[in-house]
This record gives sequence, structure tokens and C-alpha cells, in this order.
Amino acid sequence: MTQDQQDIRNLIERWSRAVRDQDHSGIRADHADDILMFDVPPPFLSRGLDAYMATWSLFFSSVAKPVVFHFTDIEVTAGTDVAFVTAIGHCVDIGEPLDFRLTMGLRKVAGRWLITHEHHSLPAT
Amino acid sequence: MTQDQQDIRNLIERWSRAVRDQDHSGIRADHADDILMFDVPPPFLSRGLDAYMATWSLFFSSVAKPVVFHFTDIEVTAGTDVAFVTAIGHCVDIGEPLDFRLTMGLRKVAGRWLITHEHHSLPAT
Repeated sequence: MTQDQQDIRNLIERWSRAVRDQDHSGIRADHADDILMFDVPPPFLSRGLDAYMATWSLFFSSVAKPVVFHFTDIEVTAGTDVAFVTAIGHCVDIGEPLDFRLTMGLRKVAGRWLITHEHHSLPAT
Repeated sequence: MTQDQQDIRNLIERWSRAVRDQDHSGIRADHADDILMFDVPPPFLSRGLDAYMATWSLFFSSVAKPVVFHFTDIEVTAGTDVAFVTAIGHCVDIGEPLDFRLTMGLRKVAGRWLITHEHHSLPAT
């Protein structure tokens, strides 16, 4: 595993722990100001950090406590300055376990990886 | 726009035209053998070119003809060897227009961009 791949795996672990801890400043710590979010529930898309954090407020309103939020099957494709990640996410909605698909896009800015895009989804029913 | 961004936009245009033409060899022409597909309908994921092409057979069985399939809001984040794309897709299911979210991941292999991941989704209802 390259250093960039390890750094991005560490970033995902910090981020998912922040979600489990409902630590709002931790959740946004490694995100770009203009992040584009495609989330599981509506809206169709959310642009910018404030809109991104609104998706987490919605998540916390419907998720069982303590919060379950972790990833398996993480695959990091990292170039020198752009990377993307695919993974399977696991959480527990009120009432039932829920697996979802995650794709994440990142840019390296001043030597540090920043998340500029997230796409969380379920297959359509 | 950089040459890499232009090359990737051209690739997306070729791919979406192949879908409109139901040109199966054109659809898979710029894809890696081990592509990971997160599609709108089930299954949860599809791995490899044969499974990827099965998702298109399913698509052609339910889409209105002639096939509508094009993208707006295309944003290409291209590094030297890894890139990702976000876009809004437009198609017409039998009966109704359907907009969906697209994320695509690419690697440059021997000087040529290859799609290694696609994530197509709707917000959950």
C-alpha cells in the first residue's frame, strides 16, 4: 500500500469515527468548501459544506443510537494529486440494518487530501 | 480545460452515444476488465465487464426507444494518472423522464484513460 492510500484510509477512518461520535466539526474536517454530495435520501444533490452538513443532521435524526457507521471492501485508487475510493457502508436505520454504496473523490491540496465529492446510494426499488 | 479533461469529456460523449445507439462493443470500449459498477436498479454491485454489460441489457429492456441518454453538469477532476467525473444523467424510462446522478472513476493506463468504476443512482424514496 502506498503512503497516499494509507493516508486516505486513515482519513476515512477519522471521518467514520466522527460520524459515530456525532462530532460535527470532525465530520467536515477533511472536506473541501465546494463539496458535491449525492446522498441516499433527497435532495438530488447538495453543494457546499453547509448543505453537506445538513445531510448529516437529517441522518442523525433517523439513525439508531449509538450510531453504527463503518465501511468494508474499501478500495483506494490514488494518483499523485487526484484519488477516488469505493466502499460498502454499514449503518442501522431506526428498525433495520442498512448497507449502502459509497464513492468518494479527493484532491491533494498543499500536500493534504481533501474530499471534494461523496456519492452514497442504495439500489432503486 | 486541460488535454486530460478534454480527453475524458470526449470519452463520455463516445460512451453515451454508444448507449443511445445500443452499440454494445462501443459501450465497453473504454472500460477496465475489473470495472466495479454501482447501478440504479439491483444488483447492489456488479464486478467485471460481463456483469457490467448485463446492467446495460437490463437498461435496454426497460428504456423507451429511441434511447435517450445524455449528461449535463459534467465536472472532470483529472490528475496525471487518476481522475473522477460527476454529472447529471438524463434518460427516459418507459413512461417517464428520469434524471440520475453519475460518478465515474478512471485510471490512465499506457497513456489512455480507462473507466474502472461507475456509480449511477437516484435518491431513495
